[in-house]
Amino acid sequence: MTQPTPRDPSDTLKDVAQAVPEASASSLASSAEDTLAASTNEASLARSVARSAEIEADLAVHPDRYRMLTGVRPTGNMHLGHYFGTMSSWRTIQDTGVETWILVADYQVITDRDAVGPVRERVLSLVADTLAVGVDPQRSTVFAHSAVPAANQLMLPFLSLVTESELHRNPTVKAELEATEGRAMSGLLLTYPVHQAADILFCQANLVPVGKDQLPHLEQARLIAQRFERRYGRAVQDHPVFRRPEALLSEAPLLLGLDGEKMSKSRHNTIELRMSADETARLLRKAKTDSERVITYDPVGRPEVSNLLRLASLCGAGAPQEIAERIGDGGAGRLKGITTEAVNEFFAPIRARRRELETEEGYLLQVLHDGNERACAVAEETLEAVRTAMGMSY
Amino acid sequence: MTQPTPRDPSDTLKDVAQAVPEASASSLASSAEDTLAASTNEASLARSVARSAEIEADLAVHPDRYRMLTGVRPTGNMHLGHYFGTMSSWRTIQDTGVETWILVADYQVITDRDAVGPVRERVLSLVADTLAVGVDPQRSTVFAHSAVPAANQLMLPFLSLVTESELHRNPTVKAELEATEGRAMSGLLLTYPVHQAADILFCQANLVPVGKDQLPHLEQARLIAQRFERRYGRAVQDHPVFRRPEALLSEAPLLLGLDGEKMSKSRHNTIELRMSADETARLLRKAKTDSERVITYDPVGRPEVSNLLRLASLCGAGAPQEIAERIGDGGAGRLKGITTEAVNEFFAPIRARRRELETEEGYLLQVLHDGNERACAVAEETLEAVRTAMGMSY
Repeated sequence: MTQPTPRDPSDTLKDVAQAVPEASASSLASSAEDTLAASTNEASLARSVARSAEIEADLAVHPDRYRMLTGVRPTGNMHLGHYFGTMSSWRTIQDTGVETWILVADYQVITDRDAVGPVRERVLSLVADTLAVGVDPQRSTVFAHSAVPAANQLMLPFLSLVTESELHRNPTVKAELEATEGRAMSGLLLTYPVHQAADILFCQANLVPVGKDQLPHLEQARLIAQRFERRYGRAVQDHPVFRRPEALLSEAPLLLGLDGEKMSKSRHNTIELRMSADETARLLRKAKTDSERVITYDPVGRPEVSNLLRLASLCGAGAPQEIAERIGDGGAGRLKGITTEAVNEFFAPIRARRRELETEEGYLLQVLHDGNERACAVAEETLEAVRTAMGMSY
Repeated sequence: MTQPTPRDPSDTLKDVAQAVPEASASSLASSAEDTLAASTNEASLARSVARSAEIEADLAVHPDRYRMLTGVRPTGNMHLGHYFGTMSSWRTIQDTGVETWILVADYQVITDRDAVGPVRERVLSLVADTLAVGVDPQRSTVFAHSAVPAANQLMLPFLSLVTESELHRNPTVKAELEATEGRAMSGLLLTYPVHQAADILFCQANLVPVGKDQLPHLEQARLIAQRFERRYGRAVQDHPVFRRPEALLSEAPLLLGLDGEKMSKSRHNTIELRMSADETARLLRKAKTDSERVITYDPVGRPEVSNLLRLASLCGAGAPQEIAERIGDGGAGRLKGITTEAVNEFFAPIRARRRELETEEGYLLQVLHDGNERACAVAEETLEAVRTAMGMSY
C-alpha cells in the first residue's frame, strides 16, 4: 500500500436521514443488493434529488428536526475548492439552527496511504479553517475520529451486518482500489463503508451533505441501521436505535485548479484558505489562461479563463458574463487582477480570523476536546442502546 | 449467514508473546506472507513447540514476567471437554502467579451466526463456571469483549496493517467459510484475525494458550504489532507499543462425546459443568459403548469404551489401563458406574461452588464489572500510546 491517487480532504465522509415526515422505508427495495445497486440508477437518483429539495425547504422551517454530520480527511490544507464545495455550507446550515457536527476523519487518512503524515498539524489547521469560516464551537461540534472509542466499537456489530461481496461492490472501495493501481487492498479500505456508517449512525445524524457519487455510502449506512434492528431488535420498543440518515445533495460549483486541471493539493494548483493576499496574487498571476485578449465566459471553449471568471463571481464580483464584459479586451492580466481582488476581499475576514486562531493552539485544542467530549457522550449513549438491543447488558 | 458448524466455546481466542529472553524477531521470515505461511509448517511448528516448553519451564521461575490471555465464546454451557481442554489450566496458570486475563468473547458469538441467542444468560453462566473452577477474581481479570471500547477501536489502525488477501488466507476464516457452506461471508468473520489481534494486543498479554491450529492467529497478532511499530513508530523510544504474544501450546486430551463423536454441545453429547450428579449419571448410562464384556483400553479399536476410561482417568480414577483391569469382565455397566462415580466426585466441589454462584447474579455482575474496569484502564493506556505513536495527540 502506498499513497495512491491525489485525494482532496473534502471529498470524503458526507452521507444521510429521516426527518421531514420520514422517507418511507417501503420505497427501499426489499433486497439489500437491489437497494444498493439501485442507489445510483436514475429513478433512485431522481427520488434522492426530490427528497433532498424537500429537506432543504424544511430546514428553514424545522431546523430542530435535524442533526447534520459532515466529515473531512485531514490530508492537507483546505483550499478554495473546499470552501465553495462544502465549507461555506457548514456555516449556512449551522446558522439556520440545525445542529452541526463536523468529523475530523483522522483515521481515514490511512485508508489509502501508508503513513499518517503531519496529522496533528493538519488537524489543528483544519480546526482553524473550520472556525475561521464561521463554525461556532458553542453551537457546533468539531471532533476527531480517533477520539471516540464508543463510536469505533460499532464497527464490530456493524461488520456482522454486511457481506464481503457488498463491501466489494461499494463504489468508493472500487474506485480507491483502482487508484492504488492493483496494490494489495488494506482491510481498512475494504471496510470503509462500515466505519463510515459507524461515523454517521453513532451520532444520530439524520442529514449528511453529499455529492451524488456518495449516495451509495448513505444507502449502506441506512441498510446497516435497518438490518441492525431487524436482527438484534431495539433497546426501547418504540424508539429506533439509530436515526436514518438522509442526503442533502449538494452541487459543488466546478472550480478547476489554476492550471486548468482538476483542483488538487497534490497538483499544487490550489489557493489555500490560509494563504496571504500576496501569495494569492502571486499564484493567480501564474494561472493558466489563453492568448485571446477579449475575455469571454465560455466554459467549454475557454475553460481556464471561464474558471477565473467563475471564481471571481463566487467571490462576489458579479455574474461571470458580467465580469467578462467589464474586462472586455483587458486580457488575462486584467482578469487576474479582478479575480485576485475579489478573492482577497472575499477571504480577508476569514483569513484575518484564521491568522488569529493559528496562534491560539490551546484554544483550537480546547474546541476539539469539547467536541470530543460531546461526541463521546452521544457515542456512549448509542453504544448502550446497541448493547441493550443485543442483549449484552451485564 | 446462518448458524453453521457446531463450535465449542473454548476453541476460540487463544493466542502469543515475548518474555523468557524474548523470541528473536529475526527468526521470523522477513516477508509477512512467508511468515504466515510458514507458521504451520514443520520447522516452524517445532520451534513453537520448543519455545512453548521453554516458557512453560520459565513460568514457575518468573511468573511475574507473563500476562496470560485466554478467550471463550459464550455460545453455550461449558462442559467437561472445556474443563480438561482449557479451563483447568486457567487455575493452574493463575496459581503459579501469572497474571491471568479471561476474555468473554461475546462479539465473537456473531462472527458465524445470525443471532446472539440468550447471550446474557450464557455470559453469566460462563462467569460462574470460571469462578467455580478456581479463577480468583481478586487475582484474575474476567471481562467482556463488548465492554472495552478502547480495545475495539484498535480495529481501525490494525485494519490498515493487513491486506485483504492476508485475511483470506487465515485458516480459521477459511475453515469457518467452508463450514457456512458457501453462504456469504460477513465482514466480521472476514476481519476475525484483526479483532483477535486487538483482543490480545490491547491488554499487553505476552502469553496465549493455543492449540497448534491457532498458531497462525498468534502470528498474525505478532505481525500486526511489528507492522504497527514499523509504520507508525512508538510512543516512547525504548518501549514497544505492544508486547509480543507467544504461544503456550496445549495438548488437550482428546475427549469424545458420549456418542463417540466429536464432543459438541449442539450434538447433545456433552456433560456440562453445571449438571447435577444425577443428570451426569443419567447421561453416562446412555453413553455409547460396545457389547464386549471385557473392558480394555484400546483407543483405536474401542474408541467409546476407551473414551470413558480416559474420562474416569482424568477424574482421578487411575491410569486408563489400570481402570480397565479393575473392571475386567464387569462390562459397560461397571465401566459407566466407575466413570460416573469418578466424574461426580471430581466435580463435586466445583459444582457445589457453582450452585452457590448461580444464585448470586449480583456478585457475578460485580466480578465482570471489576474486570471490565481493569480491562478498560489498560485499553485506554494502550490506545493512548497508539495515538501518540500515530501522531494523533490532540
